[in-house]
Amino acid sequence: MGLLATLLTTFVLTFCLGSLAVRALKSQLFTRRGGSSSSAGIPISYKTLYFEQKIDHFGFLEDGTFKQRYLIADKHWQQPGGPIFFYTGNEGDITWFCNNTGFMWEIAEEFGAMLVFAEHRYYGESLPFGADSYSDNKHLNYLTSEQALADFAVLVQNLKSTFPGAQNSPVIAVGGSYGGMLAAWFRMKYPHIVVGALASSAPIWQFPGMVPCGDFYKIVTQDFAKSGSDCDKNIRMSWKAIENVSSTASGLQWLSEEFGLCAPLKSKSDIAGFKNWLQETWVNLAMVDYPYEANFLQPLPPWPIQAVCKYLSFSGSVPDYHLLHGVSQATKVYYNYTGSSPCLNTSQTATGSLGFLGWFYQACTEMVMPMCTDGIQDMFEPEEWNFQAFSDGCNARFGARPRADWAGTVYGGKDIAAHSNIIFSNGGLDPWSAGGVNHNITDSLISILIPDGAHHLDLRYTNDHDPPSVRAARALEVNYFHKWIKHAKKIHRASVFKLH
Amino acid sequence: MGLLATLLTTFVLTFCLGSLAVRALKSQLFTRRGGSSSSAGIPISYKTLYFEQKIDHFGFLEDGTFKQRYLIADKHWQQPGGPIFFYTGNEGDITWFCNNTGFMWEIAEEFGAMLVFAEHRYYGESLPFGADSYSDNKHLNYLTSEQALADFAVLVQNLKSTFPGAQNSPVIAVGGSYGGMLAAWFRMKYPHIVVGALASSAPIWQFPGMVPCGDFYKIVTQDFAKSGSDCDKNIRMSWKAIENVSSTASGLQWLSEEFGLCAPLKSKSDIAGFKNWLQETWVNLAMVDYPYEANFLQPLPPWPIQAVCKYLSFSGSVPDYHLLHGVSQATKVYYNYTGSSPCLNTSQTATGSLGFLGWFYQACTEMVMPMCTDGIQDMFEPEEWNFQAFSDGCNARFGARPRADWAGTVYGGKDIAAHSNIIFSNGGLDPWSAGGVNHNITDSLISILIPDGAHHLDLRYTNDHDPPSVRAARALEVNYFHKWIKHAKKIHRASVFKLH
Repeated sequence: MGLLATLLTTFVLTFCLGSLAVRALKSQLFTRRGGSSSSAGIPISYKTLYFEQKIDHFGFLEDGTFKQRYLIADKHWQQPGGPIFFYTGNEGDITWFCNNTGFMWEIAEEFGAMLVFAEHRYYGESLPFGADSYSDNKHLNYLTSEQALADFAVLVQNLKSTFPGAQNSPVIAVGGSYGGMLAAWFRMKYPHIVVGALASSAPIWQFPGMVPCGDFYKIVTQDFAKSGSDCDKNIRMSWKAIENVSSTASGLQWLSEEFGLCAPLKSKSDIAGFKNWLQETWVNLAMVDYPYEANFLQPLPPWPIQAVCKYLSFSGSVPDYHLLHGVSQATKVYYNYTGSSPCLNTSQTATGSLGFLGWFYQACTEMVMPMCTDGIQDMFEPEEWNFQAFSDGCNARFGARPRADWAGTVYGGKDIAAHSNIIFSNGGLDPWSAGGVNHNITDSLISILIPDGAHHLDLRYTNDHDPPSVRAARALEVNYFHKWIKHAKKIHRASVFKLH
Repeated sequence: MGLLATLLTTFVLTFCLGSLAVRALKSQLFTRRGGSSSSAGIPISYKTLYFEQKIDHFGFLEDGTFKQRYLIADKHWQQPGGPIFFYTGNEGDITWFCNNTGFMWEIAEEFGAMLVFAEHRYYGESLPFGADSYSDNKHLNYLTSEQALADFAVLVQNLKSTFPGAQNSPVIAVGGSYGGMLAAWFRMKYPHIVVGALASSAPIWQFPGMVPCGDFYKIVTQDFAKSGSDCDKNIRMSWKAIENVSSTASGLQWLSEEFGLCAPLKSKSDIAGFKNWLQETWVNLAMVDYPYEANFLQPLPPWPIQAVCKYLSFSGSVPDYHLLHGVSQATKVYYNYTGSSPCLNTSQTATGSLGFLGWFYQACTEMVMPMCTDGIQDMFEPEEWNFQAFSDGCNARFGARPRADWAGTVYGGKDIAAHSNIIFSNGGLDPWSAGGVNHNITDSLISILIPDGAHHLDLRYTNDHDPPSVRAARALEVNYFHKWIKHAKKIHRASVFKLH
């Protein structure tokens, strides 16, 4: 759900991650009750199923198949014809998205809806070539959004034709972040399969030429600016402080010890990666700046940026070591809120449920999302968007070059008015809102703004600390769902009437 | 334009064709004036250009490119902003479609429009792997409608960004037959790129489970039934006569001589292919049953089925040899109207401008179009639709199996009401109208019926012998074009206004 911000922004392409764990493909029943993030205590219970998908929907040479995992909850489903809410899985383990999309669980009963959570190919257990899926460019060739959408389309068609009572069920796509982009695109490309889509925090315009490349980091900076006095200013100053301190061997050692790094910084050349990790940390905090204690990318306190900024509220000039002590305390809010981390691991900034390497490949092929910083309107070191350098890095890593214009060509860019029935919800605190749809396009392509919301807050469980804006957003979303379903049923009745 | 009827219907998959001629890729200026089929004498003059396309739009492993041919005529184009009429090329040489789509040439001036005719990959000169394009399944892997649509999308985007004055030009897709399917699908999948589509004689519902498999041949039969007394009945009887006569060596020799075959029938086993060729001949006649002399699939007289049926008007029972003499005379109307054919070639039934082998591959992969005959409601030998046998034949020929449900999943089948601005025109004489959209779906998904029309008659040049129905159809099409363009310009003005 993270869209793994800095993977897209950094030009340090030597990202390392252990190979994805390949779990046994077996049916299982997973039951979970409540959860710290659920104030409503809605029980989550689903069946885990597997569907045989073609590895290649767009060619006939590769005729192999793989097992796509999907989760089904039909406790409240009113058959025949009750709606299906279909989560268009994004870049990670589908059970994690399932557990973090309380909104769907909370509205299922009201709608008599079946919930389906479909895993995105190449993530979680849905690996087209099993343990070899990430072994080389050849095996990665079928990791595209178009293939994933085709998986979803084929899966929904299959569910509707095999589940007794589902044949005429209206299907609504729901997704957050990249999953939200997929939900929107699913409606755009397959409107015969989904009657509408809720695309939460979906930066469908974060592509070349559509929005200014610096807006993303401006929003991150604003979040810090308003969460503590001088908080953004001190982070802006920290980069130079790191440069200064790391110029000596003793400084490097001090930094490693101060931050409690699992792998100590050995030379000046490790500093780029270290700063990158810090930058990613600030971005992640902006994404998950929720008003209550939550565990999404990491376990965190309520309004975590405020908690972080308590350590970064120096006014005026402070010595480098002093400033960096504050930064290290701040990072520990993010990485060690529970107090159980023996050391900080700079090779990872968020939950292992996300498939970093897969998203890295996608960003290096069709999901080209320009980002830049200037150090003035944002609190980061200046870095221009350099497509050529990015492309060269991708080519070195994957033997594939990004196609900068393709996403705009295939998904329409800013010219999407011909489509219908899509809600684009965005949080004002969420840096990804920079690339989102923040105004109504037509009367059925709706923008919902949640000023106090971070990354897809509306998809999370209701919470006593939810701001009124997200409560209103969810109520509006529910209204649209009712409207779409009612319209779909009317159309269906009219077509049945015609047949007789 | 042919959709090569019998390739889809026959289970004799031992189709033989010489390898496609690979022509040199060079820019040329082709000029043609008038033509027998043009009563208006509109001069055709275009530039031939080539655009570098990715071989694979949906994967990044194959990063090669090829030259897609396209033709441009901008004599009447009113820049900036004049509309672009974009022919979505189908399974053949684009110059042939260009020369047979007089409608576009005739309306260009009225609209101040630029005409573009884009060749479909794997046909004509647009060969992704040059002379190797058809060498094996591996090279054929990128021959799909999705790849072709992506070519069109990328090409239009490129034209609009590189042609001075074209940036805000509304684009309307136009196509006939499979090209009409592509025009409709282009609007469905890329509505941000084309503001509307004219899909003439486009059987977008000729896929499994959408229309009865026998309707196609019923229409062929009706065409013959109403074009001459007992004409359909005599063709129905001819199959048994062929079986009888071919049971002896002298009978085989007689048949070969009577029909003037280039390759004499040598044994009983040649008879299946011979009957198949005849069946294809009757189908082709139904497709091109135009009211005036024309040269589309073959040079033919006005109302060619009436000309054919003059030889097949026996009432009551006639001897086999007598009946087959009539059949042979009838075939010569189709194959030797000009009198210049030294012999009849049963390995080909239509113009060499069509890419038979390419379409055969497409029919064997995603363009699965069930056909069947019962010998009662149609004049052919009974043959059920046997998907398994079809699939086995495809697998033997191409090492690929058809995916029966895919076209419905990806293009929406009968559930296309969410789309807009598509005209589906169909001719009542055209067997492909069986799989077409023959009723209005919404007020912007329009059906136009041309009762006296054969295959995409509306796309042809106007002719003094045009029935009123096709004149009315063209007038309506022009009205919709104006409406779409006006609306697009209004939307554009509104968006410019918003920016200022």
